[in-house]
Amino acid sequence: MAEGEFDLIARLVERLPSASPRLRLGSGDDAAVVEGGRTSATTVDAVVEGVHFTLPEFPLAAVGRKALASALSDLAAMGADPGEAYVVLAAPDSLGSDALLEVADGIAEVAEREGVAIAGGDFTRGPALVLAVTCVGYEGEVPLVGRGGAEAGEVVVVTGELGGAAAGLQLLSGAGGTDVSEGDRDALVARQLDPRPRLAAGRALAASGATAMIDVSDGLGADAGHLADSSGVGLEIELTSVPAPPGLAPALGGADAAERAVAAGGEDYELLATLPPERLEGAREAVAATGTALAQVGAVRAGQGAVLRGRDGAEVEAPGFDHRRGSRAGSS
Amino acid sequence: MAEGEFDLIARLVERLPSASPRLRLGSGDDAAVVEGGRTSATTVDAVVEGVHFTLPEFPLAAVGRKALASALSDLAAMGADPGEAYVVLAAPDSLGSDALLEVADGIAEVAEREGVAIAGGDFTRGPALVLAVTCVGYEGEVPLVGRGGAEAGEVVVVTGELGGAAAGLQLLSGAGGTDVSEGDRDALVARQLDPRPRLAAGRALAASGATAMIDVSDGLGADAGHLADSSGVGLEIELTSVPAPPGLAPALGGADAAERAVAAGGEDYELLATLPPERLEGAREAVAATGTALAQVGAVRAGQGAVLRGRDGAEVEAPGFDHRRGSRAGSS
Repeated sequence: MAEGEFDLIARLVERLPSASPRLRLGSGDDAAVVEGGRTSATTVDAVVEGVHFTLPEFPLAAVGRKALASALSDLAAMGADPGEAYVVLAAPDSLGSDALLEVADGIAEVAEREGVAIAGGDFTRGPALVLAVTCVGYEGEVPLVGRGGAEAGEVVVVTGELGGAAAGLQLLSGAGGTDVSEGDRDALVARQLDPRPRLAAGRALAASGATAMIDVSDGLGADAGHLADSSGVGLEIELTSVPAPPGLAPALGGADAAERAVAAGGEDYELLATLPPERLEGAREAVAATGTALAQVGAVRAGQGAVLRGRDGAEVEAPGFDHRRGSRAGSS
Repeated sequence: MAEGEFDLIARLVERLPSASPRLRLGSGDDAAVVEGGRTSATTVDAVVEGVHFTLPEFPLAAVGRKALASALSDLAAMGADPGEAYVVLAAPDSLGSDALLEVADGIAEVAEREGVAIAGGDFTRGPALVLAVTCVGYEGEVPLVGRGGAEAGEVVVVTGELGGAAAGLQLLSGAGGTDVSEGDRDALVARQLDPRPRLAAGRALAASGATAMIDVSDGLGADAGHLADSSGVGLEIELTSVPAPPGLAPALGGADAAERAVAAGGEDYELLATLPPERLEGAREAVAATGTALAQVGAVRAGQGAVLRGRDGAEVEAPGFDHRRGSRAGSS
């Protein structure tokens, strides 16, 4: 290998936090050796230039942040304790070492904030910037929560606010309304460029009796549909009960667009969960203690699929963002 | 997501073996849930079209086989029991579902042969075919073996034969000598298109007292250098002691080219290990019982780096294949 590439890899690795009591052997051997918990949750997530983000609209650090945060969000949706992450970075020659170090800094920022060790990785040249992140988490004192345990009669809850990431994307592209305050604008853009995996809220929900859980990455309608399908139940969700961030309607140019963003925006990385009704108050308090609000947004019924009702009580179509193509479902 | 893509993912997943007594929850949830061994070894490995392989010279099934086999080879080099694999597949629209199913069939072939469960993955469109494979293995009855334990006075051993994968690549590209039998030609090409991770031999070496181990993916000289650096020792290797496959010199057009392929060819995925001399015979028998030969090829000395000596006793330069660029080191 050319010396320059060796140096670059060393400089990339140096930026990434790798300290973990579980890690017996980290980067630089054939494989990382982990003294893990007996039960682990593992997820892989890839982001591809031109599909999931475009350059230079996206700052390089944001690409790194988002790649790791979106993978960690899957662990949050299991109620897992985050453990180690492994990062594959493919980049074209046109991205020099300074650019790649910016990507690494974004990864490191999230890893440090969330307490994740970067235990290994692979670097290669390629035709576009691609990040593939594997995250391993561990079962804590309560069992991990899948998507398949919801039962009729339970309530549907959502953490935080939905729609902000979609508005942030519009604002970044130069579209979107102008009647939005600078503070609201910055907060909406941050939802797109610096999403926060709800790890603590996920653990709180698991401990509070969540029967099924998923992160809202594809959009509320799509992800509610996934949870409903896995559980073999129907979900009914009232969009008027779903909290939206300040400035959403002005940023998107109206209440209809705001409702669509809440229903189908995706990439907010909040958690959607189901709970027995008698566990709702306890869950609300436990999630509030992590700094995040929990809203009851609907109910689990016998049946199948997810139905979202809008302001006028009519069903809202919410096809969801297709992260595998970077396009709206049905648009291809 | 467009229905076609949903179908495609379902068809891809259906081809991949996922049965494992360790897997509590596989594909289709936020993360795979694994009841693993306490100590695990994890590696990630990416192959990129145009960097690690070209289409259509490489059959699509071979791309899938090689992506998984090369990641498993890292587990072999730790002496780990293979466990689960997670596959990220990015592919351009020009590769239709039949093409992607061929890739999946290649992955499935290796997974079934080696007893690996495909526990999760991600599919996305992208500008080129990219496969990123994460493999998790487990420590068995003997501790995992890293690269850092070699000590002066020990012997250096290699499994199998080296140089065949480089000759196979030449033959695939239409270059290479014509004075090679059909049987030898097929065997050399198979070394390139269907490499076998030495998982059983790796476990046998770990159980036989290997102090350091690495898989020969970048080339004997480069990988011996990595092991020497990690262990803080020097390695001396006699190339005349390293077994080469039948037909290597005819396929490459001469003894000099054959020696270079043995020294620097890479991608053979054999194992290079160090052992106390008194453990050599036992190791040879244990590795032979797995169907692979073990050759003593050199010695560990105080000092640093790896020195390879050729037929005339002179030092051979062996820069190694740069898998991160798809080029010889120093060529960029």
